[in-house]
Amino acid sequence: MIGRLAPPWDRLLLDARLATLRDDLGAYGVIESAALAWKDGLVAFAGPASELPGEAAALAARVESAEGRWITPGLVDCHTHLVFAGDRAQEFERRLQGASYEQIAREGGGILSSVRATRAAGEDALLAASLPRARSLCADGVTTVEIKSGYGLDFDNERKMLRVARRIGEELGITVRTSYLAAHALPAEFAGRADDYITGVVDWLPRLHAEGLVDAVDAFCEGIGFTPAQTRRVFEAARALGLPVKLHADQLSDLGGAALTAEFGGLSADHIEWTNDEAVRAMAAAGTVAVLLPGAFHVLRETKLPPLDSLRAHAVPMAVATDLNPGTAPLQSLRLAMSLACTHFRLTPEESLRGATVHAARALGLHDRGRLVPGQRADFVQWRVGHPAELAYWLGGDLVHSVHVAGRRL
Amino acid sequence: MIGRLAPPWDRLLLDARLATLRDDLGAYGVIESAALAWKDGLVAFAGPASELPGEAAALAARVESAEGRWITPGLVDCHTHLVFAGDRAQEFERRLQGASYEQIAREGGGILSSVRATRAAGEDALLAASLPRARSLCADGVTTVEIKSGYGLDFDNERKMLRVARRIGEELGITVRTSYLAAHALPAEFAGRADDYITGVVDWLPRLHAEGLVDAVDAFCEGIGFTPAQTRRVFEAARALGLPVKLHADQLSDLGGAALTAEFGGLSADHIEWTNDEAVRAMAAAGTVAVLLPGAFHVLRETKLPPLDSLRAHAVPMAVATDLNPGTAPLQSLRLAMSLACTHFRLTPEESLRGATVHAARALGLHDRGRLVPGQRADFVQWRVGHPAELAYWLGGDLVHSVHVAGRRL
Ligand SMILES: [Zn+2]
Ligand SMILES: [Zn+2]
Repeated sequence: MIGRLAPPWDRLLLDARLATLRDDLGAYGVIESAALAWKDGLVAFAGPASELPGEAAALAARVESAEGRWITPGLVDCHTHLVFAGDRAQEFERRLQGASYEQIAREGGGILSSVRATRAAGEDALLAASLPRARSLCADGVTTVEIKSGYGLDFDNERKMLRVARRIGEELGITVRTSYLAAHALPAEFAGRADDYITGVVDWLPRLHAEGLVDAVDAFCEGIGFTPAQTRRVFEAARALGLPVKLHADQLSDLGGAALTAEFGGLSADHIEWTNDEAVRAMAAAGTVAVLLPGAFHVLRETKLPPLDSLRAHAVPMAVATDLNPGTAPLQSLRLAMSLACTHFRLTPEESLRGATVHAARALGLHDRGRLVPGQRADFVQWRVGHPAELAYWLGGDLVHSVHVAGRRL
Repeated sequence: MIGRLAPPWDRLLLDARLATLRDDLGAYGVIESAALAWKDGLVAFAGPASELPGEAAALAARVESAEGRWITPGLVDCHTHLVFAGDRAQEFERRLQGASYEQIAREGGGILSSVRATRAAGEDALLAASLPRARSLCADGVTTVEIKSGYGLDFDNERKMLRVARRIGEELGITVRTSYLAAHALPAEFAGRADDYITGVVDWLPRLHAEGLVDAVDAFCEGIGFTPAQTRRVFEAARALGLPVKLHADQLSDLGGAALTAEFGGLSADHIEWTNDEAVRAMAAAGTVAVLLPGAFHVLRETKLPPLDSLRAHAVPMAVATDLNPGTAPLQSLRLAMSLACTHFRLTPEESLRGATVHAARALGLHDRGRLVPGQRADFVQWRVGHPAELAYWLGGDLVHSVHVAGRRL
């Protein structure tokens, strides 16, 4: 690697301030008076300018100044449902007008209304509806985004969603990681036959995987979702294909979802408001990341906090994601999720930034990004801020100066 | 007015969907299949296209299509402290690391740190620091913004802040309304001599007013701010000059601030979490607007709600504003304030939109904007949404298609 990244580099940025997120440095892994260089899409140098191995002009084909700007790794949104048609704004309105969840369900609202709209949309229309949401994330610093299926709930429509997710990555020049979430809700045509539906979910998976559409497998394990036994069947199907798993776990009750995920060596257990200490220990042992989703917590006005002290005590990496979805988290900014994680979950700004970079990458099984160190992908953001804490401090606002993905400016 | 706005108009937009916020129509004052025309910076027509008084091409110098987009009045942010230097992100970080307010004060944090930074900045530097925040508001649909002084706390620095506020309006081509808030905090040099400081505050006002820098007068009436008696002295000074008043009232305790504001026929009482029913009745009688500030409520994790039912029962207009400030509301999006008002205060999306348009305009004493009706200013936003409820539903995201101020596109 070192030889491959030796000068001459493609580009060298001087007068930068780096929040590298390296663990061997202080808060944020800060390097002031720094230089950042890249070559062939990878970081080639990220350190004090005083340690550059020669005269700047001789080191890179092009040398520029970052004019003192702070630079972080590109943000990673590791949990989204951003591909869907329709929206649920009027359902949001009905709730605030006093309608109960039951009334809204009777009126055709809820997750199945997103399923209807998503099924009805053609692939191009679904792409057109979803792209602006992905663009909003990128405009706020995201360079890698996970996108789940789960509003199709049959083979063709799950496939359509996953194809749209892939196309979003191509359109925007960012990394998209897909999660197969057919076990998201029970479609109307399977009412009362959840086990039969899971048979379908398990059956469709190898065919979608064969088309290269699946990077991981997810499920919604909850009283209003699928049981642990049904989740286990989905996980076993994933394991048979060598696919990693992750789970919507213990959001509204403790069904043991996080522990089940750890048992399968899962990438992440997500939400986990109700996860108990024993399960946290299992996550730590399995290397399973805790994905915190403060947007849904906020919108649902939840009060039960994830087991933050336990996660910290057992050194479980905590990621932060938007959960961008039309029902419980119409949240189009990962920075805003970071802010909500600080306000609602009392994460520090540094924890929230690690949660939206290096830990989020790990929640996707990606070890090639999330820190600014030589050999990692040159995915980074230059920010208009005076300190990295501002990224979680401001609610809204346009703080991005520029975004690079694999060394190319978006 | 009608003659003046007769065709030929400057511009006519067809195929629009208008959320006029007229009271005599249904929710949002919606007109579908609508046309919007303007002339000399004022709305000349806002109604069903079928009621246009002739062939479109003959009615306006230029005819365009809104392509079915939703159009609302330009948003009005009626309570901000967006002119300041420095930021308080590291104080935010210290709090989340567990530091108490006392520790932070000992470390030089809190409002007086913003005063130090603001005093130290030259006028141009203060403008440069503040402009991006105003731009962020505008990018999200704001066309009128109120800006308070209150981090200068002496004649020269309050003057500098108010001058910067005026320059922001000129730079961005939007309306800026200033509020003189010298009674925001007690500067260190007056420690223990709050009454003497108020004498200064009262003394500086006519001089600043003579320079055309003051549109309204505000104060922070609170245990940690100024007493009702001190507030009364400030209000009397305003009244002597014919200036309208507004107040940071009853945010953390019920000192009777809202009632005092109503007694002076004030434009608005702001925050008002602790305002009692009798004061609400006084506000209703005086025509004083209730300005709700859910951003500070959110950041401070308050639990005491404003008297919403009472405000509704007494038909007190409820405005929603960002309170954009470096300590308790680093909130750079009025749409996000609308969302927080729905989530935390259970406003409906329509209430939140009226609160960020017509009621906010009234909180600034402006009756020439906030609705899409002939004769009002042609301040409007075209949105990329499927329904006006989406404006409060989405957290983040870029929903603005375009913004017009007095008929000119920003
Ligand atoms: Zn989810
Ligand atoms: Zn304020």
